[in-house]
Amino acid sequence: MRIAVIGAGAVGSSVVELAGEYGHDVTAFADSRSAAVDAEGLDVDAVLDRKRTDGIVGDADLEDALSGPYDVLVEATPVTLGDAEPGMTHVEAALTRDRHVVLANKGPVAERYGDVRELEADSEGRVLFEATVGGAMPVLSTIADVGADHITAVRGVLNGTVNFVLSRMAAEGLDYEHVLAEAQDLGVAETDPSFDVEGTDTALKGVILANVLSEDREYTLDDAEVDGIVDIPGSVLELAREDGRTVRLIVEVREGEVRVGPRLVPENAALAPTGTYNTVQFETEHAGQLNVSGLGAGGPETASAILADVGRLDRS
Amino acid sequence: MRIAVIGAGAVGSSVVELAGEYGHDVTAFADSRSAAVDAEGLDVDAVLDRKRTDGIVGDADLEDALSGPYDVLVEATPVTLGDAEPGMTHVEAALTRDRHVVLANKGPVAERYGDVRELEADSEGRVLFEATVGGAMPVLSTIADVGADHITAVRGVLNGTVNFVLSRMAAEGLDYEHVLAEAQDLGVAETDPSFDVEGTDTALKGVILANVLSEDREYTLDDAEVDGIVDIPGSVLELAREDGRTVRLIVEVREGEVRVGPRLVPENAALAPTGTYNTVQFETEHAGQLNVSGLGAGGPETASAILADVGRLDRS
Repeated sequence: MRIAVIGAGAVGSSVVELAGEYGHDVTAFADSRSAAVDAEGLDVDAVLDRKRTDGIVGDADLEDALSGPYDVLVEATPVTLGDAEPGMTHVEAALTRDRHVVLANKGPVAERYGDVRELEADSEGRVLFEATVGGAMPVLSTIADVGADHITAVRGVLNGTVNFVLSRMAAEGLDYEHVLAEAQDLGVAETDPSFDVEGTDTALKGVILANVLSEDREYTLDDAEVDGIVDIPGSVLELAREDGRTVRLIVEVREGEVRVGPRLVPENAALAPTGTYNTVQFETEHAGQLNVSGLGAGGPETASAILADVGRLDRS
Repeated sequence: MRIAVIGAGAVGSSVVELAGEYGHDVTAFADSRSAAVDAEGLDVDAVLDRKRTDGIVGDADLEDALSGPYDVLVEATPVTLGDAEPGMTHVEAALTRDRHVVLANKGPVAERYGDVRELEADSEGRVLFEATVGGAMPVLSTIADVGADHITAVRGVLNGTVNFVLSRMAAEGLDYEHVLAEAQDLGVAETDPSFDVEGTDTALKGVILANVLSEDREYTLDDAEVDGIVDIPGSVLELAREDGRTVRLIVEVREGEVRVGPRLVPENAALAPTGTYNTVQFETEHAGQLNVSGLGAGGPETASAILADVGRLDRS
C-alpha cells in the first residue's frame, strides 16, 4: 500500500521508519509546517534525517500531502478534544478522496465518532483505529472477532504513565509527587502530565470502546465519569498492599456507561499489570473472560498496530 | 452464511446452538452415523433434541451433508493423528466444492498442513482455524495482525486439563494421581487423560503455531519435542512454591523448534494462569511482549471462536 503519514512525532516517525519492512511505501509525510511527497516512495532515511537536523520534513506542504498519491492516510497528529481538529479535517480529506484512514489520533473517534462513520459511509475508503486503544494490543480486533453484541463489559488499564506511577508508589512506598518527578526524569511522564494523571487519556480510550460496542449511541468525553490519580496518598497503596491488593486506574465500559477511576484490585490479578504495561479484560457472553496485555504506547509499538491496520486494509 | 457442521460432540452441538445468534443458518449437521440437511436452515432445537434422545441427528447421512447446500463447513470431529482422517476427507470435500472450511479439529492443520494449504490454493474456499489453538483466545488473528515475520517466539499454556491438575497440585500439596482422579470426577479430565497429560494436545497446538509462523517448512507432531506432566511429584511443586515459583506445561515455538514440557515459572507471571485458563505470550520484533489469556476449551467457548472465523469469512 502507499501510505501518507500526517504527524511527525514518535508514532508518525516510527510508521515511516517501519513501513518498508511491512511491504508498504511511504508516499507522503507531513507535520504541521512542512511535507515531503513522492509518488514513487520517499527516501525514508533522508526525510527522517532532515526532520532531525532541519526540523522540517521537506519542501512541500500539508495540502500537497493530503491531495497526493496514497492508498491509506495515517493520522498521527496530537489528540485534540471537542472538534478534534485538525485531525478531523485530515480524515475528511482522505475519505472524500475515497482513500482509507488509519488513526493513531484518538480525537476523531472519541469526540466525533458519528461524523467519522458518516464520512466513511459516503466513501470507498474505510477507517480503522486499533492503535488508539492499547497500542499494539489486539483490542478492537478482538471486539470485531467476538462480536460487539456478545461482549457484556470491557475493563482496562490503558495508560502506561499512570500505571508506572502507581506501580512505583506501591513498590517503593513513595508519594505521588515524588514518583511523578522520577517518571518525568525517565521520560515516562510528560512535563505537563495532566492529560494522563487526571484520567483524560484513559477516558478517551473508554469512549472509543463504548462507540465500537454500541450500535445506536454516540459517546464523547462528556459522557464519561472520570477520576484521576492525583489525590491518591502513598499510604492508601500501603494499606492496600497489606491486604494483598493494589490500586490501578481502571476504565470500565458496561451497560452504556464509561467510568474511569482508581480501583482496588488484587495485587496479582490480570487487572494489575506492572510498569508501563496495559491490559484489557473482556467479559463475553459465550466465551468467559478474555484478557489481553502488552505495551500500550511507544513509537514502534503504536506503529506496529497502525501497520497491522494497513495490512488488514491491504488484505480486504 | 449457511453452515454445515460435521461432528456432534460438545463443540459441534454448541456451534449448531449458537449459529442463529450470530446471524447464520445451519443447513447441515452430521455425526459419523447420521445427518440432517435442510437448505432452508435446520430446526436446530429439534435436531439437538433428536441427538439427545435417539442418538442420531437425522435420517440423512454424512455424504448428504458434505454434498449439501452450505457456504462454510465446520469440521468438529475428534482429532486423529497421522493421516488426520476422516477430518481431512471432510476438508477436501468442502474445498473441492469451492466452499470455505473452519476447523475445530486440530488434526488436518497439525498433521497435514501442506496438504490443506495445497487444497486451499486450488479452491475458491478458504480455511480458517482460530479455534484449534486456545479456543476463544485471539491467537491466530494476533499472528495475522502482527505479522508472522515480526514474531520471534510464542510461548503458551494451552491445555486446561493439565493446568487444572498443576494448579490443584500446587494449591493443595496433593499428588498427581489424586488430583487427576478429582479432575475426572469433575469432568475436567477424560477417562483416558493421556492425550492431555502426556503433552500431545499441547504439542499439536504448538505445531499449528509453527506452521502458521513458518513460511517454508511444514511441521507435524513428529517435529515436536514433548514431555508431559505424568512424572511430576507433588514435592516439586512444594519446593517451587517456597521459591515463589510454580510449574506449568509450556509449549515454546522459537527458531523453528517446537518444545513442550513442564517448566518453572514465577507464581504470578503471565505464563502461570490458574485453573482451566490458557495463556499465550508473543515476543514481537517491534511491539514488545503481547499476552492473551482466556478459556481455551469448552463447547460454547470453542464455538465462539468458530463463529468468529465464520464472521471473518462473511465480511471478506
